[in-house]
Amino acid sequence: MDRVIRAAIINVTGYVGAELARLLAQHPNFEITCVTGRSEVGKRLPDVFPHLWSVDLPIVADVEGEVDLIFSALPHAAAAERLAGYVRDGLPVVDASADFRLYELERYEQWYGEHPAPELLADSVYGLPELHRDAIREARLVGVPGCYPTSAILALAPLAEAGWLEGRTVVDAKSGVSGAGRGLKLTSHFSEVDSSLSAYGLAGHRHHPEMVQELSALQSPSGDDELAVTFVPHLIPMTRGILATCYPTLRDDALPADPAERQTALRERYAEFYADAPFVHVSDSPPATKQTLGANSCLVYPTVDAPTGEVTVISCIDNLVKGAAGGAVQCANLMFGFPEDAGLSRIGVYP
Amino acid sequence: MDRVIRAAIINVTGYVGAELARLLAQHPNFEITCVTGRSEVGKRLPDVFPHLWSVDLPIVADVEGEVDLIFSALPHAAAAERLAGYVRDGLPVVDASADFRLYELERYEQWYGEHPAPELLADSVYGLPELHRDAIREARLVGVPGCYPTSAILALAPLAEAGWLEGRTVVDAKSGVSGAGRGLKLTSHFSEVDSSLSAYGLAGHRHHPEMVQELSALQSPSGDDELAVTFVPHLIPMTRGILATCYPTLRDDALPADPAERQTALRERYAEFYADAPFVHVSDSPPATKQTLGANSCLVYPTVDAPTGEVTVISCIDNLVKGAAGGAVQCANLMFGFPEDAGLSRIGVYP
Amino acid sequence: MDRVIRAAIINVTGYVGAELARLLAQHPNFEITCVTGRSEVGKRLPDVFPHLWSVDLPIVADVEGEVDLIFSALPHAAAAERLAGYVRDGLPVVDASADFRLYELERYEQWYGEHPAPELLADSVYGLPELHRDAIREARLVGVPGCYPTSAILALAPLAEAGWLEGRTVVDAKSGVSGAGRGLKLTSHFSEVDSSLSAYGLAGHRHHPEMVQELSALQSPSGDDELAVTFVPHLIPMTRGILATCYPTLRDDALPADPAERQTALRERYAEFYADAPFVHVSDSPPATKQTLGANSCLVYPTVDAPTGEVTVISCIDNLVKGAAGGAVQCANLMFGFPEDAGLSRIGVYP
Amino acid sequence: MDRVIRAAIINVTGYVGAELARLLAQHPNFEITCVTGRSEVGKRLPDVFPHLWSVDLPIVADVEGEVDLIFSALPHAAAAERLAGYVRDGLPVVDASADFRLYELERYEQWYGEHPAPELLADSVYGLPELHRDAIREARLVGVPGCYPTSAILALAPLAEAGWLEGRTVVDAKSGVSGAGRGLKLTSHFSEVDSSLSAYGLAGHRHHPEMVQELSALQSPSGDDELAVTFVPHLIPMTRGILATCYPTLRDDALPADPAERQTALRERYAEFYADAPFVHVSDSPPATKQTLGANSCLVYPTVDAPTGEVTVISCIDNLVKGAAGGAVQCANLMFGFPEDAGLSRIGVYP
Repeated sequence: MDRVIRAAIINVTGYVGAELARLLAQHPNFEITCVTGRSEVGKRLPDVFPHLWSVDLPIVADVEGEVDLIFSALPHAAAAERLAGYVRDGLPVVDASADFRLYELERYEQWYGEHPAPELLADSVYGLPELHRDAIREARLVGVPGCYPTSAILALAPLAEAGWLEGRTVVDAKSGVSGAGRGLKLTSHFSEVDSSLSAYGLAGHRHHPEMVQELSALQSPSGDDELAVTFVPHLIPMTRGILATCYPTLRDDALPADPAERQTALRERYAEFYADAPFVHVSDSPPATKQTLGANSCLVYPTVDAPTGEVTVISCIDNLVKGAAGGAVQCANLMFGFPEDAGLSRIGVYP
Repeated sequence: MDRVIRAAIINVTGYVGAELARLLAQHPNFEITCVTGRSEVGKRLPDVFPHLWSVDLPIVADVEGEVDLIFSALPHAAAAERLAGYVRDGLPVVDASADFRLYELERYEQWYGEHPAPELLADSVYGLPELHRDAIREARLVGVPGCYPTSAILALAPLAEAGWLEGRTVVDAKSGVSGAGRGLKLTSHFSEVDSSLSAYGLAGHRHHPEMVQELSALQSPSGDDELAVTFVPHLIPMTRGILATCYPTLRDDALPADPAERQTALRERYAEFYADAPFVHVSDSPPATKQTLGANSCLVYPTVDAPTGEVTVISCIDNLVKGAAGGAVQCANLMFGFPEDAGLSRIGVYP
Repeated sequence: MDRVIRAAIINVTGYVGAELARLLAQHPNFEITCVTGRSEVGKRLPDVFPHLWSVDLPIVADVEGEVDLIFSALPHAAAAERLAGYVRDGLPVVDASADFRLYELERYEQWYGEHPAPELLADSVYGLPELHRDAIREARLVGVPGCYPTSAILALAPLAEAGWLEGRTVVDAKSGVSGAGRGLKLTSHFSEVDSSLSAYGLAGHRHHPEMVQELSALQSPSGDDELAVTFVPHLIPMTRGILATCYPTLRDDALPADPAERQTALRERYAEFYADAPFVHVSDSPPATKQTLGANSCLVYPTVDAPTGEVTVISCIDNLVKGAAGGAVQCANLMFGFPEDAGLSRIGVYP
Repeated sequence: MDRVIRAAIINVTGYVGAELARLLAQHPNFEITCVTGRSEVGKRLPDVFPHLWSVDLPIVADVEGEVDLIFSALPHAAAAERLAGYVRDGLPVVDASADFRLYELERYEQWYGEHPAPELLADSVYGLPELHRDAIREARLVGVPGCYPTSAILALAPLAEAGWLEGRTVVDAKSGVSGAGRGLKLTSHFSEVDSSLSAYGLAGHRHHPEMVQELSALQSPSGDDELAVTFVPHLIPMTRGILATCYPTLRDDALPADPAERQTALRERYAEFYADAPFVHVSDSPPATKQTLGANSCLVYPTVDAPTGEVTVISCIDNLVKGAAGGAVQCANLMFGFPEDAGLSRIGVYP
């Protein structure tokens, strides 16, 4: 008989919280025993999210009852403040905020302000199983990556780990609107966003340092070098999905010069790097975000640009699943020794 | 240990076929052992549908190997022609076409032309478990309802079964574009459909006779009376989902005249009728189609129109799940004695 | 040389205000000399609406300078309060709010609360030129109809004016999201609305009394009878456009019984009624909202439902143009003796 | 009194043809006297495009009657074949196909195959008024640029003309679906495209050589150097609009090193270059495609990427207007000595 782990979801009332509820309610090994909210305390979960009509739990202010695991969907700062106690008590915590992603306090403070629990940074693990599977298995505190970094790092990791990157890498990323959360703002207003397309974050975006941290560490484990990354996010008139089109600059000797050999060697590199990753698929054709909708998959497509010989890598994910709640569940599966893919789908809801 | 049933999907290359593959690949009791196509024979399933990259089966021309169950996603006429042999051999068949939905041959011929296997009509069951659960358990041949009839009948069945309908019922239904299939036509062209909205089928729609057949049978088991139904489908700029807004005319004595009592009695009627239906939820607020996306749910909302005192009933489903592939799997669950909800989700992928 | 009328737009910062700016900036006879806002005073118009980069006017708190005409896009109550002075001073006013649409104070108060200037109701004209062209020509104060009433009344007016309506009329209307304005609310949040569809306003909608007022007056000029109307609005995942599907009940002797004659007589009635309306087109096929995008057109399609013999009428408009700002300009054209279609397009931006 | 020029539209039945009809029907100086089609001969224009109900012309097989100007919306090869005679007869021709865009025959043949009228290449002008205004004024044959090249060239021209480009330029472009035309293909099927996002053309795209031709000519008038351009187009779930995000590599001495000075100098370069262009607006904030919907505008936003100091330039247009039919009308305005902006709007239909 399956072992069942009691899980709490903190701040279930945003999109990441609701997506955690969707995934955990259908997971064979986790049972949601408690959900907390902030503004919606006193209501039941289906009052806030009618699609969860079959998950009829009360929304409470604080975690109640015995739990074996905490998932947090609080925003940064609020997360570290609320979670520090659980971590100190030894309760396993998977946090979807930015509070436990950046190892260097200075970098955190530059983008997010003061950190409420900096002493915990040393023990947290960056929750991208494709890079840190073993560390996550041992971790008590996991910081789930941001959605953009998930897509960009998975697109570029095979190149970085081979030490092939040099010069500037451009990450032109496109995201559905749900990445901006459920809060009310003009840039999430249907009439403003629908049938339209724009870039944003051109003055700097908080997901930039994560990409630099992880890719630089892969490229240069000694830590001497920091990669130059231009990251431009775009808002796409769709709800879910991120597609990152990455334009790295490679060392001259990284790949064969002959176009056909170049393409083959490039794809072999990716196939090898992701051989054991159950959710990353190196696709044969340019992927579309909807192929991942609702699933924990990441589709990656590396190719050679004919006119210039440079490499282009495209990746796509569902930002709320692999880019947030699904990535969190994947980490929790590892932390508790369940199959890495337990309760998670590889098949998008298509079309 | 779970018993595993070997299932074939005939005509996997349309949207209903692909959705059957998605659902069955994640079902604990069914295993897809064979998929057939027409134009795509020789390819593998992920070549046609990249989102099914983890379901790597060859597409063949005809069912091969031993199978315990046939799901067919062929269009009408082609379905009956292809399935007749399996039915005669006693193989359980769940058919998503219109060939086994209408009990009267004449009605079928009026809308679909000649029937290739009319002798099978007598043994087929209309595959709506909420009306015919026991018959489906015993059936060897099930005709899965059309997507519009599923939504309209579930909206109106509690009124019809109570004998409350009289005069005309208006069914104003709105569907996403996937209901029109994967074939290429101008009315499924993105640039024509996006940001737009139109009615169609005003000269008559094939789903009309199904609604009339099932609702009339409920309303008048003796079969004397045929309900008057005006059915107007609309095309909505979204991929999945049907919402049916139904305006029945009720007998004067059907419900109390007092508005508050009327509303209460109406909701009680629905709660009672659907007490044992695992997928139908009588919702407290007007439902939205996205609350059912990817799930086998049907949300129903009956209410009283204040200015006129008349009843309005709204229902919504995912047309490819509860309205097609999910309904088919629900029937198969019953036919094989599995839990009615095995392998099917009640939780939509929201937002 | 064309006469140029100086126009002010009050509350330019919502969608109706911005649409007035778009139309008037390209109008041969009106010149925008002043725009006012509430929260955005001190900015320039393109700071708030970058698409108006070529209409570089400062947003001020109150109308400044000499103006010949006021367009107001304030919400109800605020409109009457602000406009009363201008009306008393004899300045022509075209108001897009609900304040001058309902002739009976009681009806207004039931839906909107206290009226700030009830004494003006007697002199205001309901700004639907297709019904009240001559009165608008003489008016100093015009209340532009709501978007839903525009579509429903234009769909049903030929039947009402012929005295053919009886029993209940169902208006199942579908609107793009811009009808809810630019304010921030969850029901206009992209992720909530996109790829989804729902009904709302089931407990009553403010546009109901307008439909009843105008259609009842047409049907029964003596004023004895009030029509029974069930009105259910739906929210569609698109920005602009309303489609109203209307299910009237007609007197038995209204149309010939023979189906073909019935259809012919019905279309003739519509062709005759709209013979002189430059913006209403009785279409030969079911219209789509996008055919009116950005244009002041209303497409109307009356037809007979074959199974029941009842009449169905479909109409569509761009809610921000014919349903608001364009209707306002059309009225202003009449008030100043310009061609009714001056500065207004009949051609939608399609696809 | 305005002079009126009689214009024919060849192949009115595609999206570019229909958009030409929309613009010319509302143009003060051109009158559509003839429209031709291929498959739809014998119908009237509104039968094919109901939004053009007020432009009731018959669709004929060949240009009939006296005309002063030909607009062609035929595809490549068919265009040159059909237009050669008109050009030889001295009739002004504005062609929206690729046949008269590439000056070098070899380049054309590499992408499009044999050219039906190569002798005309010497006399044709690339129809981008912002680069070739004077030549267009004198031209009898204008090849209207492709939609992607319009957006990319307008984004990068100020840098190229200053001689600042070196190394590789990445053009990551995103387009609405209408750019693929009205033909039926799976990649324009609503259910495949909606709520999804993908890159395409990774093996090479026909619009690449135009960008290289025009930008190289600006950068290096002597013609010695060809720019290295990586161009990746993406399909966005919207109908109209292109946004090009361009990542050029600039010469070290092109701009001041100090970030603030760099930004200022960059914007000054753009303001200067586009000082006389009525339709190009250098915007203060990142533009959105919908700000140009239905208008002939191009919004350009150059900025400096803080982490790397490199320049990013974003541009957006309506692909069917400035990127096709509107650009064609702008050229015709110049050819006939009308104001460059006659009959063309600068204001998008927003929201």
